[in-house]
Amino acid sequence: MGWKWAGQSLVKPLYLPAFLFFFIFGGFVRSDEGMWLLNDPPKDLLAKRHGFELTQAWLDKARLASIRLNSGGSGSFVSPSGLLLTNHHVGADALAKLSTPGNDLLTTGFYARTRAEEKPCPDLEINVLMGIEDVTDRVEGAVKGISDPAKASGARRAEIARIEKESLDKTGLRSDVVALYQGAVHHLYSYQKYTDVRLVFAPEGAVAGFGGDVDNFEYPRHGLDICLFRAYENGKPVESKHYLKIQPAGPRENDLVFVTGHPGVTQRLETMDRLELRRDHLHPFMLGWLRAMENSLAQFAATGAEPARLAAKVSHSIANSRKALTGQFMGLCDGELMDGKRRGEAELRAKSNFDGLDPYRAIGQACTKQATFHREYALIERGLALDSDLFTIARHLTRMAREDKLPGTDRLREYRESARSSLELSLFSPAPIHAALEKIRLTAGLAYLAEQLGATHPMVVKVLAGKSPERRAQELVDGCRLADVQERRRLAQGGEKAIESSTDSMIALAKAIDADARALRKRLEEEVEEPERQAQRAIGLERFRILGRTMAPDATFTLRLAFGVVKGYEVDGKLLPFHTTLGGLYGKSTEHDNAVPFKLPARWLERKGRLDMATPFNFVSTADTIGGNSGSPVLNRAGELVGVNFDRNRHGLVRNFVYTETQARHIAVHAGAIVEALDKVYDAGELLKELGIR
Amino acid sequence: MGWKWAGQSLVKPLYLPAFLFFFIFGGFVRSDEGMWLLNDPPKDLLAKRHGFELTQAWLDKARLASIRLNSGGSGSFVSPSGLLLTNHHVGADALAKLSTPGNDLLTTGFYARTRAEEKPCPDLEINVLMGIEDVTDRVEGAVKGISDPAKASGARRAEIARIEKESLDKTGLRSDVVALYQGAVHHLYSYQKYTDVRLVFAPEGAVAGFGGDVDNFEYPRHGLDICLFRAYENGKPVESKHYLKIQPAGPRENDLVFVTGHPGVTQRLETMDRLELRRDHLHPFMLGWLRAMENSLAQFAATGAEPARLAAKVSHSIANSRKALTGQFMGLCDGELMDGKRRGEAELRAKSNFDGLDPYRAIGQACTKQATFHREYALIERGLALDSDLFTIARHLTRMAREDKLPGTDRLREYRESARSSLELSLFSPAPIHAALEKIRLTAGLAYLAEQLGATHPMVVKVLAGKSPERRAQELVDGCRLADVQERRRLAQGGEKAIESSTDSMIALAKAIDADARALRKRLEEEVEEPERQAQRAIGLERFRILGRTMAPDATFTLRLAFGVVKGYEVDGKLLPFHTTLGGLYGKSTEHDNAVPFKLPARWLERKGRLDMATPFNFVSTADTIGGNSGSPVLNRAGELVGVNFDRNRHGLVRNFVYTETQARHIAVHAGAIVEALDKVYDAGELLKELGIR
Repeated sequence: MGWKWAGQSLVKPLYLPAFLFFFIFGGFVRSDEGMWLLNDPPKDLLAKRHGFELTQAWLDKARLASIRLNSGGSGSFVSPSGLLLTNHHVGADALAKLSTPGNDLLTTGFYARTRAEEKPCPDLEINVLMGIEDVTDRVEGAVKGISDPAKASGARRAEIARIEKESLDKTGLRSDVVALYQGAVHHLYSYQKYTDVRLVFAPEGAVAGFGGDVDNFEYPRHGLDICLFRAYENGKPVESKHYLKIQPAGPRENDLVFVTGHPGVTQRLETMDRLELRRDHLHPFMLGWLRAMENSLAQFAATGAEPARLAAKVSHSIANSRKALTGQFMGLCDGELMDGKRRGEAELRAKSNFDGLDPYRAIGQACTKQATFHREYALIERGLALDSDLFTIARHLTRMAREDKLPGTDRLREYRESARSSLELSLFSPAPIHAALEKIRLTAGLAYLAEQLGATHPMVVKVLAGKSPERRAQELVDGCRLADVQERRRLAQGGEKAIESSTDSMIALAKAIDADARALRKRLEEEVEEPERQAQRAIGLERFRILGRTMAPDATFTLRLAFGVVKGYEVDGKLLPFHTTLGGLYGKSTEHDNAVPFKLPARWLERKGRLDMATPFNFVSTADTIGGNSGSPVLNRAGELVGVNFDRNRHGLVRNFVYTETQARHIAVHAGAIVEALDKVYDAGELLKELGIR
Repeated sequence: MGWKWAGQSLVKPLYLPAFLFFFIFGGFVRSDEGMWLLNDPPKDLLAKRHGFELTQAWLDKARLASIRLNSGGSGSFVSPSGLLLTNHHVGADALAKLSTPGNDLLTTGFYARTRAEEKPCPDLEINVLMGIEDVTDRVEGAVKGISDPAKASGARRAEIARIEKESLDKTGLRSDVVALYQGAVHHLYSYQKYTDVRLVFAPEGAVAGFGGDVDNFEYPRHGLDICLFRAYENGKPVESKHYLKIQPAGPRENDLVFVTGHPGVTQRLETMDRLELRRDHLHPFMLGWLRAMENSLAQFAATGAEPARLAAKVSHSIANSRKALTGQFMGLCDGELMDGKRRGEAELRAKSNFDGLDPYRAIGQACTKQATFHREYALIERGLALDSDLFTIARHLTRMAREDKLPGTDRLREYRESARSSLELSLFSPAPIHAALEKIRLTAGLAYLAEQLGATHPMVVKVLAGKSPERRAQELVDGCRLADVQERRRLAQGGEKAIESSTDSMIALAKAIDADARALRKRLEEEVEEPERQAQRAIGLERFRILGRTMAPDATFTLRLAFGVVKGYEVDGKLLPFHTTLGGLYGKSTEHDNAVPFKLPARWLERKGRLDMATPFNFVSTADTIGGNSGSPVLNRAGELVGVNFDRNRHGLVRNFVYTETQARHIAVHAGAIVEALDKVYDAGELLKELGIR
């Protein structure tokens, strides 16, 4: 339910030479770092470093061909008929929802040989960025002179809701105000939205995710992590005038390439206090939750083929996050890395002038406050204790009924009018909900709740109601009728009255903890986020004054442009090549006796003889990416698609905090491998024709 | 290294009707509850409930045929030539140590067709209980009148060391003073010890642990969880005059059976404050550690066949503990169960007279103190942060050098003279140590250290030395030479001088944290254990006065006698039979497409036709067992072996806190299945002859 970003994220520490920090933070030399805003692109940098003239036409085409998926990734149009290319692991959510006990598309893959065979995805939404407008003055104007953070937070939220509503009314586009530079700047993003998206092609999971958790975040890599969908409007394929042409020749070594996509979250501009809060509180808490969930899902999956199928999609995403967070945590514990960051902060701070105020200290105080209730917030308001689709639906129904009585400017953000249709898409999704999986996830979440807060904590007492986590999870799932979409619609239409009189177990729980959950959110917004936003604005303005806009803002799951150079790198004295080959895929499988997770699909074994083993398979570049960039097109100077980004290597796992070109790389599927596989493994001649290859 | 108990332990909650607690604690009715002391056996109870006259001869034979293994389990002599029977999962430690990359005995199993082929285990020690003496008066006399807990703790330890040393000198037997009833009573246990133990027979891991983690703690069950060793002395098989004869007919439904073995730990006589400490602090902490370790080991195992082999033994034991602790935690969170315990405590407390003192309150205070440093204690002194064989060796060498300079009465318990030879057996074991596995375990442990205490905690700073957990683990393992037994001997012989001048990475770490670790141990002993021991003595004496010795003491990994009735039970209205069959094994495997963990070994598939499918395979009884009882013989009235205990069902997982006969059962391999398998699957005619079957 709702928006999140899946996909690539972080594993092993990066040992950045200390001097590099000085230069980066001092602004003396520049690297290929940066997830740049499309309305503030690095034209000068590209001209100076790479002799490339970035034209508005190039940029506009890249923007209009790039898409965002609500399953948490990126993609691009690759034909004039709405065909869009992303990663298999971004499409996985849709693949899982389209699967049935006898027919697991995640495993078997899928190919619609005709348009009639294309499978409509129950709740997939894609967005194309149509415009960006700087609304900083309006947002800041609304809070100016308000010293009480609670009031400032409210005024800010109301102004943002007004801006979004006005934009929606004027343009009909999905309209989101985005806080950049930790809240120093606000931009309004408007998107064309498509909600009729159909599955066209997916390879078998075993070749898309070849190497599984073992190879995730590793290189050399051999994955055909691609998936093709088609966007429809009014029952017809979208006419996607702006699409990327696939260039099977791919990139050569040292070529300049670009990545347009939607990086989810980075923390490079965060202060040391916040990084330390992450290291000592937030990350350990999240790692504990991820391990508990992964552990429970693994036990469930081991009980049989059908449980394994149900657990697969969630498990992959949990394992991915666990590996990413582990890598981040290793970096946060690394004295060298943290000392480098510390020096950079001290240097900038020494040059800054805050008129006697100390925004760094204000952030430190906010972090200290957050440490006291971050677990309650994450468990109860973010819902980690209640990791269940049924509960998520119950909470949405409960809150929607209550929020809809308020004016749009006063509502919680997810219930504002401009976001309503996206919310309803997921809320009324016909995607199946499996009681057994719900119980497993809920048991794990409730147990973690009791472990973290202690059984006598008032929230634990309220949520568990005197039962063990396992018994309570059973009772909650068995007593809930929200798996039925009609029941959801009935409650949504019935409004507050229907909710208040409902005795559904999950609705009852959502009602019982709503006030507490809202109070936690209010506390976070008013005691942490608002003071931090104001402090970050002060720091950001000083950074702009001292260094200019030499750093892109941290990632916000909005469209960014990254660039880099295709090149290999050295590990322990050994040079890793800039690309792998299809031959390498078969070699690695043989080395592991064709055993899971290195087992190749039957079709790939049968058709081995047809394939050109020298075909480049995956390649790496220095372009700056992070989780959310999964599925992003990799473009050449001509704006052609030469690859599809799908991961970072383990040296890139600390990219949340620091960028380096030494060993960190993103990893992409080579366009040539896509064409070779579609042609010789999947007999997908029609697709190749549409892609303009034939 | 060292003594621990593996094996069966606890998963799903037990919902004991509340009234039962009243009766149990009120002492009005009696059940089959009890892990009884061999010198205080339940003669009256057996006579009244089961019409069985327990004779001293019966008891003596059972005692002298029963053995304890230092790999953490129980077993029994089953032939006059030192042949001993235990569980496969108790023998697993030895099987792993005897395996090599090309020859994994855990997987393939093993059968020595001649005595010459029997494989000597590197560090397996077995004990036979020769005598028990009540030394309560001596121990209590030594602390009498000492009000300072630190001094009392020291005086108690010194007196215990004296008693043990005197016994060792007098008898030559391994001599351990054991605290019973939470320290209210002290007994001296003396053991005949055998350290030349050789592997005779083990089935394939896939049939011994059929169903893996999925079926662990579940019933109906189908596991051939057995392993045969032979004890030697002076190069010849031990003449085991007292051995149990195998009775292939096994038990019939409703038969009375007995279990003699070494239950590890229970907490039934603990006060509510301590149970709440477990629920809110100790269990969540341990569960987090177990999940972190299991998760890391699973990732390591997935990288290839050899890593999988290395990880297997540790993984199984970690998964077993995780499942057990999860079940316990569910019970501790269960309002009904805890309310029942609370009522029982209140009832006894109301009848007690403590002369104005309040021992319950004293325990509550001790628990409050323990909560403030239990994590530091577990991580640094128990060594969970340093989960590495190399570190364990380094710590032993470091401490041995220092402790050996003190008189025996002042030493840490594990370095007392009466335990020296057992310590050296493990310290100088030639069992291989694998650097890759060491790094994985250590990385996980060090990460958990930083997660739990925060990176700026002085102990974390000291242990990580500015590096990430991963880098630090690599550095520690790469810089350590203690995998070489000769190097260990050299350092042990060199004493304190050799240790102080050693620059070995692990020795250096052991030295660096030794003072802190000892301080934590001292704090636990003096601020928690000693006050609690004194309070428990007061409570225990009152319990004896009010109820008589109607309850056995909590488990202490010493020999106990349990009894019960062989019978099935009902779950969700369905009656589970008292035994399964060999036919059921094949049926279950087929149901799961013969896929792991339900995949049968090739030999079992080939020889299916020879087997009598109606042969009883596993059976259950109400006898009271817990982890440590693994491998215990199950005896009939005639003192014949009718089965080998190997697990409890999930309803028995809360047995740590409360016993019930409603659904809780222990699970045993049926003697008939052992004979059928040895005969028809393994062609082990010689063994059957020795067992007196042919």
